[in-house]
Amino acid sequence: MTLKYYHAEPLANSLKSMAPLFEKGLAFESVYVNLHKFEQHEPWFVAINPEGQVPVLDHDGAIITQTTVINEYLEDAFPDTPPLRPATPEGKARMRYWNKFVDEHVMNHVSMHGWHRMVGVIARGIESGAFEEIMARIPLPDQRAKWKAARSGFSDEQLAHATGKIDYALDKVEAQLSRTSWLAGDDYTLADINFYAHCGMMVERMFPDLNVAARFPRLIDWRDRVTARPAMQQALAMPDHTEPGLRTWSGEVR
Amino acid sequence: MTLKYYHAEPLANSLKSMAPLFEKGLAFESVYVNLHKFEQHEPWFVAINPEGQVPVLDHDGAIITQTTVINEYLEDAFPDTPPLRPATPEGKARMRYWNKFVDEHVMNHVSMHGWHRMVGVIARGIESGAFEEIMARIPLPDQRAKWKAARSGFSDEQLAHATGKIDYALDKVEAQLSRTSWLAGDDYTLADINFYAHCGMMVERMFPDLNVAARFPRLIDWRDRVTARPAMQQALAMPDHTEPGLRTWSGEVR
Repeated sequence: MTLKYYHAEPLANSLKSMAPLFEKGLAFESVYVNLHKFEQHEPWFVAINPEGQVPVLDHDGAIITQTTVINEYLEDAFPDTPPLRPATPEGKARMRYWNKFVDEHVMNHVSMHGWHRMVGVIARGIESGAFEEIMARIPLPDQRAKWKAARSGFSDEQLAHATGKIDYALDKVEAQLSRTSWLAGDDYTLADINFYAHCGMMVERMFPDLNVAARFPRLIDWRDRVTARPAMQQALAMPDHTEPGLRTWSGEVR
Repeated sequence: MTLKYYHAEPLANSLKSMAPLFEKGLAFESVYVNLHKFEQHEPWFVAINPEGQVPVLDHDGAIITQTTVINEYLEDAFPDTPPLRPATPEGKARMRYWNKFVDEHVMNHVSMHGWHRMVGVIARGIESGAFEEIMARIPLPDQRAKWKAARSGFSDEQLAHATGKIDYALDKVEAQLSRTSWLAGDDYTLADINFYAHCGMMVERMFPDLNVAARFPRLIDWRDRVTARPAMQQALAMPDHTEPGLRTWSGEVR
């Protein structure tokens, strides 16, 4: 049995499916894809994932994409490893409700701020002709549009809308954590990993104006419990090739 | 065992979780929620689903919301009924990949056109004070924003973007159907039901300019195969209380 995981830095999407690999004790070959060099659009990678996006899981030749799909796949394919999905139908539904919420109402909004701060800097640093060449190699039209928007800068209205969505999500998570110790109930699940990777781990640093620590104490406690997990520590310790000046998700460059 | 299904007309979300109930031969109590009278925002319904949205499945008191979540729940809770989810981990991943694509890249775009044509007519027919009262009862901020946008009318740019996304989806589905007989492989699954309910069943009537029949013959054949299924026929035969003049998804009012 061979597992290969193609990924970038340990945050957001790439972290989201790496944490389960460590939680489940699955040995895997790590293949780092350098987004700073646009390796995800190179022919060798597009041959693996025609959408030109990381991460990708290759399990004995079966190619699985999309982190929420990959993570359920790991549960289905390795049922004898520690579960990150509740055992009951209702528990699974709770987890999937949160996964859907994060996928559809959180991820893109944090991502827009990250792109605005980091990818915008990169995109504006590329000369005109070279930029169009890079754009031409991006398979997904939406992804091309996002690069162009990042280059010209997202509008204040777009960024404010995204911040509003994040604020709404923080309220919702805080309310849930007043009822259960984890997002989908009393067990740590893929839903926690999802919200952590896309928002929880960086929201306090990225959005100081939201007063996260003061307004959402349960979320801070939850975040610290996720961070402290040995598997998360292993995932977070994976190489980060981002230039220090571009680590904007940490809030250092704004 | 008691199953209650709260739903509106048999299309889009409400159809999406009704078709599996019939496919699986599950007896259920149908509770019609009249969206034309805004019953989904009334206290009795918000007490069941705080988000004020149909459909909702009540299984012996367990409340499940979100159609993609409901449909996986039915697979988990009733494993001895005819499956609509592939048996292998890889098959499940293929199905979930398509479900995610429909949920995130198709549904809202067809919905915007539907709202523009139908809900816009309704929203503009409501007097100012009454409209604000209705808005105040809508739990989800996004849903309030959608109503306001429908009332003022979506912009040409928004509608064109939505049409572009639908066109992209039709191409993608047509390509898939050249490789497999159903979206997620050689079995009919929840992915087919998802795309059918949100796009496939009405796309030809709603978007005559897209020349669907000429450009996407496999999709038309697939649509007819889905429509012909006895369970889909049962679902489509559920009551439709939409006033004839408002049946815009059929393309009659534009």
